[in-house]
Amino acid sequence: MSDSVLVSRDAAIATVTLNNPTRLNALSRMAWIELGEVIAQLDADDSLRCIVMRGSGTKAFAAGADIAEFRRERANVDQAREYGRSIASALHGLARCRHPVVAMIHGVCVGGGLEIACQCDLRICGESSRFGVPVKNLGLVMAYAELQGLIELCGKSGALEIALEGRVFGAADAKAKGLVNRVVPDHEVEGEAYAAARRIAEGAPLVARWHKKFVNRLMDSKPLAPEEYDESFACFGTEDYRIGREAFIAKKKPEFKGC
Amino acid sequence: MSDSVLVSRDAAIATVTLNNPTRLNALSRMAWIELGEVIAQLDADDSLRCIVMRGSGTKAFAAGADIAEFRRERANVDQAREYGRSIASALHGLARCRHPVVAMIHGVCVGGGLEIACQCDLRICGESSRFGVPVKNLGLVMAYAELQGLIELCGKSGALEIALEGRVFGAADAKAKGLVNRVVPDHEVEGEAYAAARRIAEGAPLVARWHKKFVNRLMDSKPLAPEEYDESFACFGTEDYRIGREAFIAKKKPEFKGC
Amino acid sequence: MSDSVLVSRDAAIATVTLNNPTRLNALSRMAWIELGEVIAQLDADDSLRCIVMRGSGTKAFAAGADIAEFRRERANVDQAREYGRSIASALHGLARCRHPVVAMIHGVCVGGGLEIACQCDLRICGESSRFGVPVKNLGLVMAYAELQGLIELCGKSGALEIALEGRVFGAADAKAKGLVNRVVPDHEVEGEAYAAARRIAEGAPLVARWHKKFVNRLMDSKPLAPEEYDESFACFGTEDYRIGREAFIAKKKPEFKGC
Repeated sequence: MSDSVLVSRDAAIATVTLNNPTRLNALSRMAWIELGEVIAQLDADDSLRCIVMRGSGTKAFAAGADIAEFRRERANVDQAREYGRSIASALHGLARCRHPVVAMIHGVCVGGGLEIACQCDLRICGESSRFGVPVKNLGLVMAYAELQGLIELCGKSGALEIALEGRVFGAADAKAKGLVNRVVPDHEVEGEAYAAARRIAEGAPLVARWHKKFVNRLMDSKPLAPEEYDESFACFGTEDYRIGREAFIAKKKPEFKGC
Repeated sequence: MSDSVLVSRDAAIATVTLNNPTRLNALSRMAWIELGEVIAQLDADDSLRCIVMRGSGTKAFAAGADIAEFRRERANVDQAREYGRSIASALHGLARCRHPVVAMIHGVCVGGGLEIACQCDLRICGESSRFGVPVKNLGLVMAYAELQGLIELCGKSGALEIALEGRVFGAADAKAKGLVNRVVPDHEVEGEAYAAARRIAEGAPLVARWHKKFVNRLMDSKPLAPEEYDESFACFGTEDYRIGREAFIAKKKPEFKGC
Repeated sequence: MSDSVLVSRDAAIATVTLNNPTRLNALSRMAWIELGEVIAQLDADDSLRCIVMRGSGTKAFAAGADIAEFRRERANVDQAREYGRSIASALHGLARCRHPVVAMIHGVCVGGGLEIACQCDLRICGESSRFGVPVKNLGLVMAYAELQGLIELCGKSGALEIALEGRVFGAADAKAKGLVNRVVPDHEVEGEAYAAARRIAEGAPLVARWHKKFVNRLMDSKPLAPEEYDESFACFGTEDYRIGREAFIAKKKPEFKGC
């Protein structure tokens, strides 16, 4: 592996850094593949409770795919299909990852960078952050896997506006469109993102995983199978439910175990 | 029946009160069952045009399920499945009730209280109202039937934020997330909720029922059957259509009959 | 054809005008049919890159269906079914039209006027614009085809509020509900709508058509067929992709050809 995607760890919270600081953290084809692999590894880690996704430095979350290599790596339909598979795989990996993912967004968050942010579970950005998907100027489209995340956050109308006009816009506009959960002063982005991650990590970990799984499941219109419906009640058999209920009654802070 | 859910009536508008004022109107298992029964009775009443749902007093709409009884009533998976059936039945009953339901939200509206509000057709709250679903601190999850309403109002992103962070937040935040239709000064909540109910009650009653039915139908992605499509035009055979059309042309206020 | 729907053209941008200025551009049954026909003709025109939809003058986008003719044209269930087919056909035509459509909204945009605006891809209105669907006062309902567009823009909650209360409300409220993309001072509505149309027309035309097609496709929950999935990558075989990519690398403005 190269160092295009970095991982660090502090107790139950992992931080994943998109790392190409001289190019606003633009993602090469290899970076998309590595992002997918990194998320798959973190997904498998039972001791984890939350992932924070960020860009290297504070100029950009990520500027999208690295266009400089398109002549070589995304030059025709066949290459693009393969390239698109790597993007879709990374995006699906984020959505399917058991652990909640918080996007810490500094600065530029456009194109593929915004597509990554859309697949995180919570998005916190700074007042000077910039958003958009100006691919209409490149003559290329967002594939279905990329559009889906945009539609889930800002609906048909927001997705059409972003795709058709191709404007780059600010944080207040992104908030109004539903693209981000919270806008904070630039110097508070890191603090607020980790505060959100800690709030998540302090909750019962299985509950977080179930909530993420259930919300994603309901985005699919297929009727629930009886065993899926039943999974809603499995939490009441966990040790953490006993801990949480008794802590509430005793007016104490619960210390969850993840079982 | 106990007095955990009260009903009063003023002409075509019924008021349903969640009544447990010493515990912020928290709902016991019996209260969930009674709520379902009360809504079923009101649903069957052809003379009704609108229901207003509120909590007793002005400190709370409802604080959610009554956790004090969980050791006895929601202590394991089997009890929780049964308990969950009572919640789902009350929530579905509100969604399927023919008559529009306006939630008049004073103060605390969290957990199961918010789930009830989400199944009403209009939500009006005061500036000091507080919202959230902090069940991640209890070690339990919102079941599918409970998450569905949250997703319908505030999308995947809002539902994930509420479930994963478990924060309790204010009225402006609730409005931005799509949880409430209107925020008014605290002392105007009651007036505005009844004003909305009167606006609804003054319209053609069958039209209100059809609109509620059709909007809920479209939340299901299953294609419309021909007879469902056709039901869109049944209104043009009603006496109320003749009354409304002629009143419009005569620039008078229509007096609808509900037939 | 009458002159109830006018078309003009400036290079790659066509303007469609709902033209009944003495009646706030209310649409007669014939106007609905003509709107459908006009959109079908523009849809077939490969040289077009964007359509701007507006009302004649600046008092109204459109006040809805022309109620004055209802006694004659929409007097019973059978007539209403036929009338409804003309509305649905015009609305579907806008949604399915290959070219992006920008709604330039001056003044009144209610009833059928709002339903038309909802089927456009971008909505720009003035600060004094007014919105609503007060058909509950007429004793008639929005049919499924009419409700669908409202739900896609403002969700279950917004659609229920608009249908059940039947209020007419202002531009800020419409923005908060998701009904419009942008509110600008009244005298800037025309300028901003054409600026948006030019931003769209300057992008690669096939990309705009694909984005519109793909976003609309994803509003249907049916799984994608392999050939649909594959269409996402067809753009990488176009001349416009080569033009866009090379212009980006050369830091020049691309001149797209539409092939």
